[in-house]
Order: sequence, then C-alpha cells, then structure tokens
Amino acid sequence: MAAPSRESSTAPRHAREIPGWDRETDVVIVGLGCAGASAAIEASRAGAEVLVLERAGAGGGTSAVSGGLIYCGGGTPVQEKCGFADTPEEMYKYLMASCGPGPDEAKIRLYTERSVEHFLWLVEQGVPFKESFYPDGGSEPPTDDGLVYSGTENAYPFNEIARPAPRGHCTQAEGAAGGLLMRKLLGAVERADVKLQANTRCEALVLEDGGIVGVVARVERSAYYVRARRGVILATGGFIYNNDMVETYAPLLGRCSYRVGTEGDDGSGIRMALDAGAAAIRMDAGDVSLPYYPPHQLMRGILVNRYGQRFINEDAYYGRVGEFALLRQEGHVYLIVDDEIFARPKGAMELAAVGETPAELEAELGLPTGALESTLAFYNKHAAQGQDPLFHKSRACLSPLTHPPLGAFDCRVERALYAVFTLGGLHTDTSSRVRTPAGEIIPGLYAAGRTTSGLSAQGYSSGLSIADATFFGRRAGASAARH
Amino acid sequence: MAAPSRESSTAPRHAREIPGWDRETDVVIVGLGCAGASAAIEASRAGAEVLVLERAGAGGGTSAVSGGLIYCGGGTPVQEKCGFADTPEEMYKYLMASCGPGPDEAKIRLYTERSVEHFLWLVEQGVPFKESFYPDGGSEPPTDDGLVYSGTENAYPFNEIARPAPRGHCTQAEGAAGGLLMRKLLGAVERADVKLQANTRCEALVLEDGGIVGVVARVERSAYYVRARRGVILATGGFIYNNDMVETYAPLLGRCSYRVGTEGDDGSGIRMALDAGAAAIRMDAGDVSLPYYPPHQLMRGILVNRYGQRFINEDAYYGRVGEFALLRQEGHVYLIVDDEIFARPKGAMELAAVGETPAELEAELGLPTGALESTLAFYNKHAAQGQDPLFHKSRACLSPLTHPPLGAFDCRVERALYAVFTLGGLHTDTSSRVRTPAGEIIPGLYAAGRTTSGLSAQGYSSGLSIADATFFGRRAGASAARH
Repeated sequence: MAAPSRESSTAPRHAREIPGWDRETDVVIVGLGCAGASAAIEASRAGAEVLVLERAGAGGGTSAVSGGLIYCGGGTPVQEKCGFADTPEEMYKYLMASCGPGPDEAKIRLYTERSVEHFLWLVEQGVPFKESFYPDGGSEPPTDDGLVYSGTENAYPFNEIARPAPRGHCTQAEGAAGGLLMRKLLGAVERADVKLQANTRCEALVLEDGGIVGVVARVERSAYYVRARRGVILATGGFIYNNDMVETYAPLLGRCSYRVGTEGDDGSGIRMALDAGAAAIRMDAGDVSLPYYPPHQLMRGILVNRYGQRFINEDAYYGRVGEFALLRQEGHVYLIVDDEIFARPKGAMELAAVGETPAELEAELGLPTGALESTLAFYNKHAAQGQDPLFHKSRACLSPLTHPPLGAFDCRVERALYAVFTLGGLHTDTSSRVRTPAGEIIPGLYAAGRTTSGLSAQGYSSGLSIADATFFGRRAGASAARH
Repeated sequence: MAAPSRESSTAPRHAREIPGWDRETDVVIVGLGCAGASAAIEASRAGAEVLVLERAGAGGGTSAVSGGLIYCGGGTPVQEKCGFADTPEEMYKYLMASCGPGPDEAKIRLYTERSVEHFLWLVEQGVPFKESFYPDGGSEPPTDDGLVYSGTENAYPFNEIARPAPRGHCTQAEGAAGGLLMRKLLGAVERADVKLQANTRCEALVLEDGGIVGVVARVERSAYYVRARRGVILATGGFIYNNDMVETYAPLLGRCSYRVGTEGDDGSGIRMALDAGAAAIRMDAGDVSLPYYPPHQLMRGILVNRYGQRFINEDAYYGRVGEFALLRQEGHVYLIVDDEIFARPKGAMELAAVGETPAELEAELGLPTGALESTLAFYNKHAAQGQDPLFHKSRACLSPLTHPPLGAFDCRVERALYAVFTLGGLHTDTSSRVRTPAGEIIPGLYAAGRTTSGLSAQGYSSGLSIADATFFGRRAGASAARH
C-alpha cells in the first residue's frame, strides 16, 4: 500500500506485519446496525463462523434511532392486504426514474425482483408489520400502521411513469420504530449463534496475497488483530458526522443544519477500504429532507425560490423537494401559505414575512416588485380550475391562495431544518463485493448499507436506506460465507 | 495493494516484483501537455534529471488543441497596459465566489498571490501575449488580442463581490492558440535539458517502502520499467473520454454532446493513483459550456427553462450558464430572441419554434398557456426601464423583446452543443503532492492539471485549467526535484 504511513490508523497492514492474531473466525463483520445484523444472520445460516465487531457497547447503530421504515414492494402481503396492487416491474420503473441521475440498474433490478422475498425474510426474523395503511405519506407514521407512501410515487411525473403504490413498510411501533426493528434483528443475530465483540473499534484492514484477510482493531487502547478466513464485511454507516469528508466531497451537504446519523457515521469504514484500494463513488450525493409537511394541508401552499418562482410540485416527497431546494435553488426557498391552509410545519420553520396582499408579502420578503405577484396570479388562476399546468400538482392539493393574510415560511437552508445524510460510498456489485477504481473485485472484502453507494444514487425515497442495508447486507453475508 | 489483480493494467507493482529497471532518472513525468511541460521545466531548473514519458508520438496533449487562454491576474503587465487595475485580493474574492461550492481556498490563495509572477514565467518561456484588450468576453478571441474577460467577473453577482477585471490572457495567435502555447512550452522543455520518451504509455505505479519509486509503462507491447529516484508526476489529463468513469462518477456530464479533450483524457493517471492509495475528489464536477453567444447581442435574449422561467442573468459567462442549465434545469433550456436581436449563436442551435406573439411562441414550444407570456411581460416591462430586478443583467443587455417574430433557440442538452470536460480528480496539496483519503501525503507522488481537482472545484472561468495546470505543474516539478 502506497503511502498511508504506519501512524495512520486507517492504513492497511500486511499480514506479515501482524504480530499475531488475537482472534480468528470465518467472517468478520464491522458494525452492528441493520446491515451488519442482516449480514451476520445470512453468513451464519450459510455455515460460516461469524464474529461481529461493534465499536459501541452494543449493537443498534444509526438504524436503532431511525424511523424503522423499509422500502419494499412488488406485491408484499401488507400491500395486498391494504388493497394496493404492485409488481416488481412497476417498482423497477419508479426506482429507475427517481433514484438517479445514474442509478445502479443492476442493484435496482435485483432488489425489485426479490423485494417480496426480502420482506418475508424480515418478518421471519421477527420484525412485526401491521397490515394497515396510513394515508398521509412522507416517512414513518406517528401511528403503528404498517404501510405508507414514503417516496414520490404518487406525484408527478412519477405517477405517470409507473403505477403508484405505497412501499414504505413500517416496523410496528408508534412513531420512530428503528429501536424495535433493531431489537428484532439483534434477537435473530443472537439466535443465529453469531459472536459479538463490543467496544471494539476497527481501524484498518489486513492484506495478504492481494486480498483482505482480517482487520486491525482497538480494544481499550491496544491493537487487536482479528483474522477472517473467508472475508470482512464493512457495515459502518455513512460519513455525515465527518466534517472534513463532507467539506471535501459534498460541501453542499455541509450547509444543512440537521445531520441524520450518529457519531459512528464518521466514514471510517469507507476510508479503511479506500486506503486498501477500493473505489468510492457518488461521494457528493446525499438525502436532503425539507419537512415543510405534515400537516399535509401545507402541500396546498407554494414553494418559491429567491426569484419568487415555483420550482416543483409541492405534493412531491419532501426528500425530493429538499434535494431540489439545496442543489438547484441554492437552498433559498419560502413556503407561501394563506389563512385557509395555515399550519405550523413539522420542521418548525419560522415565518419570514406576512402580508395582507401578495404585493405586501413580496415587499416584506424583499422580492422584486411583481415577482411573487405574477407567480401567485398565475397559480391561483389555474388552481381555481383544479389545474397546475406547470408542475402538475395533484388536484387535491390545488386551491387558490386568496384568503388573507398570506405568510411565507422561511425554508432557507441557513434558517430551516434541512435533514441530511450521505448516500455516496464504496462501489459494490450486487453480491456486495467491493470494487477497485478499475472495476475489479477485492477478494475477501464486502460492504453494505451507507458504507456503500446503494439503491439510491442521489434521488431518495424514505426506507431505501434500510432496504439496501438489509438486502445487500444479506447478500454480503452469503457471499462472504461462500468465499 | 489489495486487490487489483496482476492482470489489471493500472494495479501498482511492488519494486521487488520488477524484473529490472529499463531506465532510471530523478523525476519521471507522465504526460507532456502544459502541466507536464511546466513540471519538467521547473524540475530541471531545480537540478533534477528529468524524463517525460508521453503516450503519443510527441508532446502537446489536449493543451495543444485548447484555446491557449490562461487565467492570470492581480496586476499583470498586460492588464496594466490595457488600463485595468487588478489586485490579488480582488482576484481571490472572485475565485472564492465563483469556483465553488467548496473551492480549494489554499490553492486559490497561493495562486492569486503568485499569479503575476506566473504570468512572467510564461513569458520567460517564450509564450507571447499582445498587450491589447478584446472587448467581447467568453473564451479566446478570434483575433490575436491578449486580454479578455473569460469568466463571469463583469456580471452579477460577481461584479458586486469583487472589482471586475479581465484575466483571460490569450497566447498571441488568431483564434485557438493552444498549439502556439505548447510549441513555446515544448521549446522551453527542450532547452531545459529534459529527456522525452514518446510512444510510451504508463500503466501503473511502482511502490516501495510506502512510497512511489517508479512506473510501469508499455513500449510497443512490452513492459518497460522506469525508476524515479525522487518522484513521479502524473500530468495525464482528465477523464471525459472514459465513458465508464463518466457514467460512474459524473452521469450528468455524459448527457453532453461535445467532449472537450482528446483520447488521452481517459482517466488513466487518476486510476493509477487511486489504485495506489490516492484520493480523488469532486469527481462529479465538470465545466459545462453552452455557447449561446457570440454574437454578444444574443445576451439581450432571455434564457428560459421548461416552465418558461428565467434562471440566470444572460450576460453571465456561458460556462456558468451551461452549469446551471445542466445541473439545475435538467438541461432543458431555450434562448428567446426577437427580430431585433436575432442572430445565429456560435453553438449553432436550431430554432425550436417561432411565433408572431409570445402566446404563439409559447404554444409552439408546448409550454403551458401564459407561462412564457408572463415571463416576457415582466421582463419587457422592466427592460424598458433598463432594469432586471430578478437577475440583474447589465443595462447594456437589456432591451424589451417586442419586435416580432419571436424565436426560441433550442438549448436542450439532447439537441444543442454542450461542451464538457471533467474537473474532478486527485486530491493534491499546494505543493502538488498527492493525498490519501486520510489526508496524508503519498511520498514520491505528485500530480497537476486535470488529473487533479484544481482551482475550479466546480464553477469555472475560461483559462483556469491551463492556469492551474501550468502553475501547479511548476509546483510539482519543484517539489519532486527537492524530494
């Protein structure tokens, strides 16, 4: 390995430099969030001896503080019970259209074909899902309902590209259910005769004969060497908590106020693998959520940029809106509402301005005279006919904003809650094997979850992260066990 | 090195695997474009024995087919002779504001401080510049004038952030002057007692004791090993001609029809270094030019997106416009003109539609009724007063578009000429040393030019590429010689 000096903690070591192995196993899994747990279950089922190394005192990771929502479809029992017809092909079309630019077609094809089976696998591990639909889409519902629209399937243009179906399958608990999801997966890990060593922080990989044969970790302050006879799986999360990496690779994401993650999302797994020759791709990508709803009546407002222009149908998934706001509108957006639809958005945005008329509101916002007025005039004229010729918002969200006073919620990135996590990471194939920049496989190295670039290359729907972490985590476990 | 197999041509080799060195020198430079030439001159001047390996039959590279424009400022003799006052601080403010997001502050600071000296160095190598200003900004002029506005300095908001000054210094030849620029630099290379071995394609780096000690190349079909006692400098260009890399790292750039580069821009240097542990950053970034002018009267038109909305001041540098069009407007843009300003744009866009009135044009374009009409009504009202309250286009480019017929030039990415090259690459410091993902230096490895992420992290001005290639090429040569 070229340069990372011996002092660099992420530099790979060569096996001949290892003083001796402190522990040996078939498959080493680094990290015990939902990706690591899924990998552990499958590797053990495939007959491998499995050891999970977790830097914290116990498993759970960022998955445990997530919403517990998993994007599954193609005709799951929950979808069918709730009366929604869905097929792998419709799910494929939606994901190909929404996960780009440059979505990973092979991963999307495989996942959509196997999604029902994957849902059943989660159930088999004990993860509970209630067969009921929660009608207000977005992310995990406040109730314990099991199904929700968690992406932008039901909004233009996606509702014309693919037949819409809700695919957000929510672990059965009120509100954020990541804790329950992880308790169930960790229970399955225990039953699978997987060994766990907590308080063990992996630092670097160990190489031999061009492949990965183990890891270097720290236990308390001492180096600790673990041999992996068949492979190492990196399931260490993303890098949103590493300010240097965010600044270097994805500076726009650094403008967002709320980092979705835990301190474990420091990119250490990505860096270990990069130092050992792996490729990282789409490192600029992130999921950016701007929660201007619920309550869903706020979709009847209009989002405008610094020029007073609309730029998206306001019934789109707020992750798509957040992405557009940050990447295309310089993070400078207002939500315009009138008295009829007024409510406080979930994201707790402040009112930037109020006015009795569009002209007043415009002046209060410091927008050029006529800019917002002309936008509102055009919008209201068509909304009165139930139409949105520019952005095709659904009829249910179209009503003229003509009841004074008017207000503008401040959705600018410096002022409002923009929730962000990283989507870029190691380049893996559909068997979760890690690739080099030349596109070759690194023997003995696997990765899943936010350590990798997964189903979502850039465009996101809630639940895709846990979906690809658990599905490609399983693939990693099976691949490593067979190596 | 982990995985790249022995069959992979870019996988680094260990020195002990080398059967023997075919040639030895102090500093090996890979590539003889303007970055490699500048590095060679400085390394030799610092007392090192220098060997340049060039895959083609002679030096020149993509630089030789470029416009020959170099972005210099801070008070060069040409600027002063032409009557423009400029300082390093104003240049710094402009570049920090325009080269982002996340511009490399250390590189910009160093370059702006040393830009005058660098200009004088170019002159010392024999590169000629005429002390005359060409008033129509953009890229290299059709005349042999020496100075032009080559960025967006003179347009809002930059003309308020920093005092505008033209900084595009054009090698003295009519039209594209890259050939002359390279002839002069190559002459200086010859005079500097630098050895050149052409028809030699470098494939991989050679490692020893954690540093780079040489390269593996191909001469005809045979492997050829060159030892570098002090260092290797990668000056191999960008990756716009590597479709796989563009698709993987920067899929939006792949939509553009015109690749600015030559077949040498295949990312091989980047991949060699990545395989040896280097970090590549901003790999999604690219310079995207949409040449809707000259002739400059076309700046008096308005650019609208698929919603009939303006999105930028049309007197901005067309590289900034191209970036905004592709990244923020989905590559879906039209240039609206009237009979008074009608002309054929340099980029040879076709007319998508014509109409006697805004309503007719709008209908012909398939835009929603009223969308373009309201944009034109607002624009024309204010342009008649010499104002552009939304985008602050300069007064000289403001006149109402009220002389029928109206036309819409098709500036959509599938139809129009979008010229693109890559801006992402190896992560180097201000001494052109290559970094690992952990931020450490790889001993013996340097890089400059489009092999690296340079002065422009994303936002571009014409001439910045040759500027950072030659300046940080010199830094690479000096650094390597001293190693």
